[in-house]
Amino acid sequence: MRGGWQTAWVKRIAVEPQSGRYESLRSAVEAAGAEVVSVPEADALVWADPARSAELGSVVDQGPSLSWVALPFAGIEPYLPVIRRRTDLVWTCARDVYSRPVAEHAIALATAGLRHVVGYARETSWAAPVGRNLVDGNVTIFGAGGITAEVISLLQGWNCDITVVRRTDRPVAGADRVLTSDHAVEAVRNADAVILALSMTDETRHIIDADVLGAMPHHSWLVNVARGGVIDTDALIEALVEGSIGGAALDVTDPEPLPEGHPLWGLPNVVITPHVANTPEMGIPLLARFIERNVATWLADGSVDGVVDPVAGY
Amino acid sequence: MRGGWQTAWVKRIAVEPQSGRYESLRSAVEAAGAEVVSVPEADALVWADPARSAELGSVVDQGPSLSWVALPFAGIEPYLPVIRRRTDLVWTCARDVYSRPVAEHAIALATAGLRHVVGYARETSWAAPVGRNLVDGNVTIFGAGGITAEVISLLQGWNCDITVVRRTDRPVAGADRVLTSDHAVEAVRNADAVILALSMTDETRHIIDADVLGAMPHHSWLVNVARGGVIDTDALIEALVEGSIGGAALDVTDPEPLPEGHPLWGLPNVVITPHVANTPEMGIPLLARFIERNVATWLADGSVDGVVDPVAGY
Repeated sequence: MRGGWQTAWVKRIAVEPQSGRYESLRSAVEAAGAEVVSVPEADALVWADPARSAELGSVVDQGPSLSWVALPFAGIEPYLPVIRRRTDLVWTCARDVYSRPVAEHAIALATAGLRHVVGYARETSWAAPVGRNLVDGNVTIFGAGGITAEVISLLQGWNCDITVVRRTDRPVAGADRVLTSDHAVEAVRNADAVILALSMTDETRHIIDADVLGAMPHHSWLVNVARGGVIDTDALIEALVEGSIGGAALDVTDPEPLPEGHPLWGLPNVVITPHVANTPEMGIPLLARFIERNVATWLADGSVDGVVDPVAGY
Repeated sequence: MRGGWQTAWVKRIAVEPQSGRYESLRSAVEAAGAEVVSVPEADALVWADPARSAELGSVVDQGPSLSWVALPFAGIEPYLPVIRRRTDLVWTCARDVYSRPVAEHAIALATAGLRHVVGYARETSWAAPVGRNLVDGNVTIFGAGGITAEVISLLQGWNCDITVVRRTDRPVAGADRVLTSDHAVEAVRNADAVILALSMTDETRHIIDADVLGAMPHHSWLVNVARGGVIDTDALIEALVEGSIGGAALDVTDPEPLPEGHPLWGLPNVVITPHVANTPEMGIPLLARFIERNVATWLADGSVDGVVDPVAGY
């Protein structure tokens, strides 16, 4: 193709800001067949840094031709103000891209907790034998998105009885039952592990409160790979100190990062991993592949995956 | 049934010695339909304590009618002298009974290592993000028995590339390739995790030596759920100190229990769990079910599962 009239059809995409993800995202955009340009000339923007939400609003406003903004991560709360201000744009997030590493982390944390690997890691001598199976056990998962689907898929051979808690009672493939959020207490009563893999919204804030914690069996481990705010941290500390649950394995915290000296650091039945369910090493190749696919379908027919609902907030 | 001539057909089983497993094993034997008697009157013996190997020889010699001795565990090295002295008896072990919990422990340790849960468990502040996936990774398993079969089954949904190392090159269901022990170095070259699940024999002693450790990738974790002696511990310590492998997660050690002050205790890239892949809490119900099934088939047609090969030693 050549000729000036056709240039309007060559879609142009900006990749901003410079970051550790920049080069692989730029390559992905080019590999899909789009031209990389500056924001004022661009038809779409691929945002390359999860940590710089404050800048995004003004960058977006510099692009009069933008119709699509791709956010390269799953948790988009810091971006909701600009998403809700600019509902004229299509916003996408990398919702399910990282589900598989995150699901693996959830299982790694659940087994490390139940089998006391967390405690043994801190020993300097041969200690007494403790530990429980996750195989043949009961798992309750909050949330019914991509992470939950992947947890269920990874547990295929584990013969677990799986309960999913979600907003609606729509069935979830591979789950033995689905309960709505108002049955959260009932849902955890027999759980050996409770895995939190839901979005952070006004509705899910502190969904794990004193009542839910109180209903969990004494040996049960709480695993959070969602967002810190879905747990009432004060109630959790109380449950951990009293030993009313087996323990907590937290990849996300409230506040985050968890400050030094915070009571959660000192507890024997807690392990904190610093938001590493999906490390850059694991995630950037997955993200690049996702962006390349999304740019390719956008060029072909304007369709994109992972569209954000500005009202629901995910 | 009644009448003296028939009593010869009511098989009688001794359960010895008194131990934490005694009551559940006695119930299992009775549930299968056998009468529990003392050793001198017994046709078979169920040994109820894994820790008291020294007594077994003299107890067995007290039973002139014994034809079968059931050992309630998988690792039978301490019993080999008496097994080899009394090859007139059928010896069984609980070889595959505990495979499933042990397989779960292997995966728990591999993911705890690769995802740095071991290191994070020792932190008291928010640390840098590190960690690798086991999903979509390469796993090399030494041994082709029940534990390996269960590891492969638990990894069903994980899309791992699985290499099994065994004595012969007979195929293993679910493995992508099988290599014989003389190809151990080649087998670990691309492994993200190396899982040891083989029997301890003269042949497998120190099968993991400096050469095999030297061939493992720098990020790779070594997981031992077999017996401590299959690893050359001095060579392992050297590899761990040099950082030539990612780390070691050891549920079994040489010597075992690992004495306080042993160099393995102090290393940041090591986690020791004190032979808890199968805790009594997990294992006794599995054992009782196995003994009940074995007694039932023995009563029915004289057949039993888990027969020990006195020469091979497992």
